[in-house]
Amino acid sequence: MLRGKNRKNNGKLRNRSNDLLTVEWKNNQVVMIDQTKLPGKLVYVRYKKYEDVARAIERLIVRGAPAIGVAAAFGMSLAAISSKAKAPKALLRDLEIAYDRLKTTRPTAVNLVWALDQIMNVAASKNNVEEIKKSIILSSLKMATDDITTNKKLGMNGAEMIRSDEVILTHCNAGSLATVTYGTALGVLRAANDMGKKIRVIATETRPVMQGSRLTAFELDHYGIDFSLIPDTAVGHLMSKGIIDRVIVGADRILKTGHVYNKIGTYQIAALAKRHEIPFYVAAPNSTFDLTSNVNEVVIEERNKNELMKIGNKLLAPKGIKVFNPAFDVTPPELIAGIITEKGILRPPYEESIAKNF
Amino acid sequence: MLRGKNRKNNGKLRNRSNDLLTVEWKNNQVVMIDQTKLPGKLVYVRYKKYEDVARAIERLIVRGAPAIGVAAAFGMSLAAISSKAKAPKALLRDLEIAYDRLKTTRPTAVNLVWALDQIMNVAASKNNVEEIKKSIILSSLKMATDDITTNKKLGMNGAEMIRSDEVILTHCNAGSLATVTYGTALGVLRAANDMGKKIRVIATETRPVMQGSRLTAFELDHYGIDFSLIPDTAVGHLMSKGIIDRVIVGADRILKTGHVYNKIGTYQIAALAKRHEIPFYVAAPNSTFDLTSNVNEVVIEERNKNELMKIGNKLLAPKGIKVFNPAFDVTPPELIAGIITEKGILRPPYEESIAKNF
Repeated sequence: MLRGKNRKNNGKLRNRSNDLLTVEWKNNQVVMIDQTKLPGKLVYVRYKKYEDVARAIERLIVRGAPAIGVAAAFGMSLAAISSKAKAPKALLRDLEIAYDRLKTTRPTAVNLVWALDQIMNVAASKNNVEEIKKSIILSSLKMATDDITTNKKLGMNGAEMIRSDEVILTHCNAGSLATVTYGTALGVLRAANDMGKKIRVIATETRPVMQGSRLTAFELDHYGIDFSLIPDTAVGHLMSKGIIDRVIVGADRILKTGHVYNKIGTYQIAALAKRHEIPFYVAAPNSTFDLTSNVNEVVIEERNKNELMKIGNKLLAPKGIKVFNPAFDVTPPELIAGIITEKGILRPPYEESIAKNF
Repeated sequence: MLRGKNRKNNGKLRNRSNDLLTVEWKNNQVVMIDQTKLPGKLVYVRYKKYEDVARAIERLIVRGAPAIGVAAAFGMSLAAISSKAKAPKALLRDLEIAYDRLKTTRPTAVNLVWALDQIMNVAASKNNVEEIKKSIILSSLKMATDDITTNKKLGMNGAEMIRSDEVILTHCNAGSLATVTYGTALGVLRAANDMGKKIRVIATETRPVMQGSRLTAFELDHYGIDFSLIPDTAVGHLMSKGIIDRVIVGADRILKTGHVYNKIGTYQIAALAKRHEIPFYVAAPNSTFDLTSNVNEVVIEERNKNELMKIGNKLLAPKGIKVFNPAFDVTPPELIAGIITEKGILRPPYEESIAKNF
């Protein structure tokens, strides 16, 4: 595992197989990379309380739909361990409190609720306190290892279609840092790179939180994949120049209709890709699908205006002004060429291919 | 004229008619607002040498196509005053040196060359040193007052078509701070506001240099116009929600075919507007038209990667990575509903309406 110092040897050699481990269960604690400190510092934080995990999710110390799912599951493990309940019923009550707290941390990514529900189902199926606690920890650990396996399968599925010399644009961060490790959209790029295909990546900086500059650039640099960073304003320009061959992004929630919720800016990239006849792909594991909600029911999180107003302590805009800062947008299925999952690439019509996938 | 302190009376009352004067000729010096200090501080800088004006243009202390045109003309006045030449020929040689230096500061905005050529033509038409110097100063002063008159006419022309309660999106800064004062795209919004039309403005922050957050937000706040700031990534999302009624942006160069060079991000906004059937307007004076170049001949300035990599001293992305940072893009005529000039609104087909305008 990467611990900062071994990232580069004398700034020259680089161990490309050194996986960034975003969230981990270690000695009954949750250990995670503090992503708010990247790219400046690779810092790991440790939590013993589920409340701290909840706050870490809210503050984007951990982010990315699959990663916050696993982080929340580990949060439930912490809640289980720290519960003083003597009877299953009392323990389940404690778990319900943790569940409710963790569930409200971020409203849009569906993996969060998916992971929390999995844990509660496991807990409800056991009959004594120790068994419940043990099963929760084992389930959350399995979720973490499953995430890695899933991403690697998904990566291979996506990488097969990529030709050598392609220039692929990605938005936000759907990489190791958005999952336990390996990544979804960046997992596809990594797998293609590992197959020896010479890809070039264009990473958008992804305002306002700059997951592109801070996280995707950090990862691609770390894994030795050729890339350039661009402002979000240059997407259309590059497409019009014929420079982009393909777009691959991650997802926070995919509906049964094929509507994709992802980082703000995704929809406009998809619309611009359509205009320039560039295939637009989404890479996400099955845990990102929400087969029950309809497109008007999903809450799009609005985040604090300071994300736009400030960088560090530097004020970027006049105090007291109005800001609109939605964290996500919706990309309709007609703009999507395919959805890459661990089971294969889903193609339109999505109502059919998604139903078949489950 | 606004001098910082009188902007707000006790932070409550506000004199909305207080025009921001971006660039001014005063006591044989060029005085300009240092736009790199906004919105934090309203600071005025004074220059006695044309070289300092050239550097100010390069460093974006003054920016905006019409403003850099006038600034460059004032730079020529400084060159004329400081020349020790005794004969017209020697003076013209000194002026040529200043011309060449000022011309290379920014390659894309056409107003710069337009203004410099005007000054050189005036200089060449006079026969003695004192007359040349005097005529250059008078011409540059006339250029500055013409800019204001032009913008006010342009503003009225554009404002007439705006209905009350419209929500208008603008990109970058085409306001007072992009001109001597009043602005082009923002001049239209100001004129509409002054007519009592209740408009609401959506300002994109405009990465990487953030002219939207820093300058447009500052101006709209200063002039008391209702607005919200959004990240560049939220444009498509807002359009898909049906929130935007119209787009109005400025221009750095307009070709005889109607191709518009403007701040990076303009093209994708125009393409997204087309998709959502939102009329997209460009506001620019006649001095922004380049009737000789073709679309493939115009150089698009690429700026320093630090504009993306840093804010203040804070590093936003890992050191040493590749960055693509074009300052402008091209919007093709088929995406433009109209070009608002001081003579009226030009409509497609632009080859005809532009030719008729000159």
